[in-house]
Amino acid sequence: MERQGGGAVRANDGKVRKGGEEKPMRMYDVIAKKKRGQTLSDEEIRFFVEGYVSGRIPDYQVSALLMAICFQGMDARETTTLTMAMAHSGDMADLSPIQGIKADKHSTGGVGDKTTLIVGPIVAACGVKVAKMSGRGLGFTGGTLDKLEAIPGFRTAVPVREFYQIVNEVGIALVGQTGNLVPADKKLYALRDVTATVDSMPLIASSIMSKKLAAGSDVILLDVKTGSGAFMKTIDGARELARAMVEIGNGAGRRCAALITDMDVPLGAAVGNALEVQEAIEVLRGGGPEDLRQICLELAAGMLALAQQTTGEDSGGGSRAGQSGENGTGSRTGQNDGDGGAALAACRERARRAIRDGSAFETFCRMVRAQGGDESYVREPSRFGTAPFCEDVFAPEDGYVTAMRAETIGIAGAALGAGRETKEDSIDPLAGVVLHRKYGDPVRAGERIATLYTSEQGRLTAARDLLLEAYTFGAQAPKPRTLVYESIGL
Amino acid sequence: MERQGGGAVRANDGKVRKGGEEKPMRMYDVIAKKKRGQTLSDEEIRFFVEGYVSGRIPDYQVSALLMAICFQGMDARETTTLTMAMAHSGDMADLSPIQGIKADKHSTGGVGDKTTLIVGPIVAACGVKVAKMSGRGLGFTGGTLDKLEAIPGFRTAVPVREFYQIVNEVGIALVGQTGNLVPADKKLYALRDVTATVDSMPLIASSIMSKKLAAGSDVILLDVKTGSGAFMKTIDGARELARAMVEIGNGAGRRCAALITDMDVPLGAAVGNALEVQEAIEVLRGGGPEDLRQICLELAAGMLALAQQTTGEDSGGGSRAGQSGENGTGSRTGQNDGDGGAALAACRERARRAIRDGSAFETFCRMVRAQGGDESYVREPSRFGTAPFCEDVFAPEDGYVTAMRAETIGIAGAALGAGRETKEDSIDPLAGVVLHRKYGDPVRAGERIATLYTSEQGRLTAARDLLLEAYTFGAQAPKPRTLVYESIGL
Repeated sequence: MERQGGGAVRANDGKVRKGGEEKPMRMYDVIAKKKRGQTLSDEEIRFFVEGYVSGRIPDYQVSALLMAICFQGMDARETTTLTMAMAHSGDMADLSPIQGIKADKHSTGGVGDKTTLIVGPIVAACGVKVAKMSGRGLGFTGGTLDKLEAIPGFRTAVPVREFYQIVNEVGIALVGQTGNLVPADKKLYALRDVTATVDSMPLIASSIMSKKLAAGSDVILLDVKTGSGAFMKTIDGARELARAMVEIGNGAGRRCAALITDMDVPLGAAVGNALEVQEAIEVLRGGGPEDLRQICLELAAGMLALAQQTTGEDSGGGSRAGQSGENGTGSRTGQNDGDGGAALAACRERARRAIRDGSAFETFCRMVRAQGGDESYVREPSRFGTAPFCEDVFAPEDGYVTAMRAETIGIAGAALGAGRETKEDSIDPLAGVVLHRKYGDPVRAGERIATLYTSEQGRLTAARDLLLEAYTFGAQAPKPRTLVYESIGL
Repeated sequence: MERQGGGAVRANDGKVRKGGEEKPMRMYDVIAKKKRGQTLSDEEIRFFVEGYVSGRIPDYQVSALLMAICFQGMDARETTTLTMAMAHSGDMADLSPIQGIKADKHSTGGVGDKTTLIVGPIVAACGVKVAKMSGRGLGFTGGTLDKLEAIPGFRTAVPVREFYQIVNEVGIALVGQTGNLVPADKKLYALRDVTATVDSMPLIASSIMSKKLAAGSDVILLDVKTGSGAFMKTIDGARELARAMVEIGNGAGRRCAALITDMDVPLGAAVGNALEVQEAIEVLRGGGPEDLRQICLELAAGMLALAQQTTGEDSGGGSRAGQSGENGTGSRTGQNDGDGGAALAACRERARRAIRDGSAFETFCRMVRAQGGDESYVREPSRFGTAPFCEDVFAPEDGYVTAMRAETIGIAGAALGAGRETKEDSIDPLAGVVLHRKYGDPVRAGERIATLYTSEQGRLTAARDLLLEAYTFGAQAPKPRTLVYESIGL
């Protein structure tokens, strides 16, 4: 029997609202909507990104929205819209002057992760172009650019025409970002970094993928790390992030896949910039630690397989965007189940051959030369020398290494001078750690497990304490380590 | 068998942290801690309030923290610490030049709430001082100061010495805030208002109570409204807020209690500034709508009872702070069960007598005169006149009024010009609504249920639509309305 007037005009913000007026979109309402757990429209997401980049929407409203997103999340459509809006907030790199398929990789970051230095030359040696622009992040140890700069003369600031030319001639260039790429991410990341809103899946996925989309490659392989030294501590979290990113990439018409790889234990034995370059050279020459070598082969195989799919489609006349839309928005893990395994195995073999025949190493040498680096360091790594101060660390007891917390080892590396805390900090290229005993290895009390390197003697004590803290010893050998947990979209 | 190093130094923010260093407190860590759902320490809360007021901590970090508080809440200790830090962020009013017990009341706000204009003079006529400083909020209709300014000449900006003098001589003064009272709340509220972080219980409680504590009265009675026209839509929410505020007040050594009262239906018949002053005068003269009269008697009785307890304690030698701590952090509802009911009944009778013998009305007149207002308007309310445009609203059908959404009626009042949307907006003192039929009343189709008043004819149509939308009619009489749901701490 009750009757109510329809079409209520409600003031849901405590403010007076006059009846019937059309209101322009307001950031307040966008925040309130997300806070209530509702889904934002494409218009609302674009309104917020464009408004923030242009300065119309202030930091304090955006940080409130970011915190609300941390609690309420974003669905796949919202995340893709956010990513596209961010990618288009500035210049989009034009890689069309580079012939052939361009493949990119992205690692979510880990301790001792020098895979780009190895995988890039392998892939380029196999005929797929690697035109990679990296940002310069903060971290326990430097990023790819910092590592390369440990080679005397190596230039990461390369004009764009020269960049095209190097990639066309050598097959690969690893340079710093030029132009105004993804200003929305720069602004948003800087804000997230000071407001404790970094660890939100849709914000992480959109930040990474907006940069990958703007960087222009056709093929994107994501290396999502999981474990104590990774941003994603659990496999579930890593899988969620990987799926979100693969979905965004495919939704944007790129060929995109992800590997979920271990970062409970540092990758390889070297942590620190010049130390990692030397280790990368070892792998390119057919040696180096087995875990690093294996992961690099998987990553290279993944990139080659994706590039092959792209070529196949092109010759088959299918459009990438159309193909990638076929499977809708679900997981793409099974996309190439038919012959994916065989194709991947063939790509793995190609990558292995590029190491064996020296073509990957020679590609690396040519890139270093083309970017102004002193090639003699690459051919004769002893020229890097060692840091003025070093100290061995010894096992306190007999047993096995049952855990080594990669994050703590990363902090130890930073304590020695291998990382930077603010963008202005300089990096000590020779500082770092070399791990002689790793997860699963048997040790005896008093045996050397690691060596610390630094240019400032005073840094050694804290680093040694951290390093010992990172190791756990036990009487029983632990279960074997898994290097690659899953692949998504391969 | 596993062994781990103790005293871990962890970088929980993705930044490099060097081993063993003492770090100064950082806002980032405070945000991250609350985001994780942890309890902030007193030091952290004071750090954030002081840092924000001094400008060291930027808006964007504070808005992120506020949003995290919206999701994770604050416990009683955190809320009290926040309130005290806010109260002490600026001047604390010194009411010591005023003799006797000073009682304050606070309403969480509602439509047609003119109770301060009635309760203040009643309490003052009973010998308890009312030295009330109000802020000037935004709302559907004006605040207490806006209502009083509908009386020609009435000054709400009164120098502090004159304020003391008026309260000492008349027993009451209702003035605007002077000095730098609670700058933390001004800054925080302005930020909450644009970041959709208003509706958080600890933030609401601390905002209200910091101002009450800084305003200096010994006794504080809180009128927490609940229902469609209130900020707290549910009784549970109102109870939670009331308990939080009473706890803060008692924890700070004031005598504090709360009533939870209905705001599903507007209070009285008048909504709009001059209209409400006239209705207040009716009640002070022994007439007026029954709901308004009853609530005012309950509020006045509560204030008088609290003041009596304070006097009793003082003569008995007990400290207020000590007494208020006795019951710990639980509900204080039963605190005075022994003779509270009898004492309250006596106070109710004193309040009734102050209306009956005219002393409350005379106190109101003296206050108006002392604050420069034209007393003839109070003695002869027809002098207020009516707005140039008015329109009756008629019932669309036979039946009973089974609901009237106070909020929508408030919006109708604002649409007529009785409220302000921004601080710069001016108020039309004569605009508003008079309700002829209220909740539970029988109506016949075509019968007049309300009259709209405005100075701008064009505002009538939207207001009429809103008013009709606010009413629900039904064939059966609804269950009787409850005016006071609960009392806490009385």
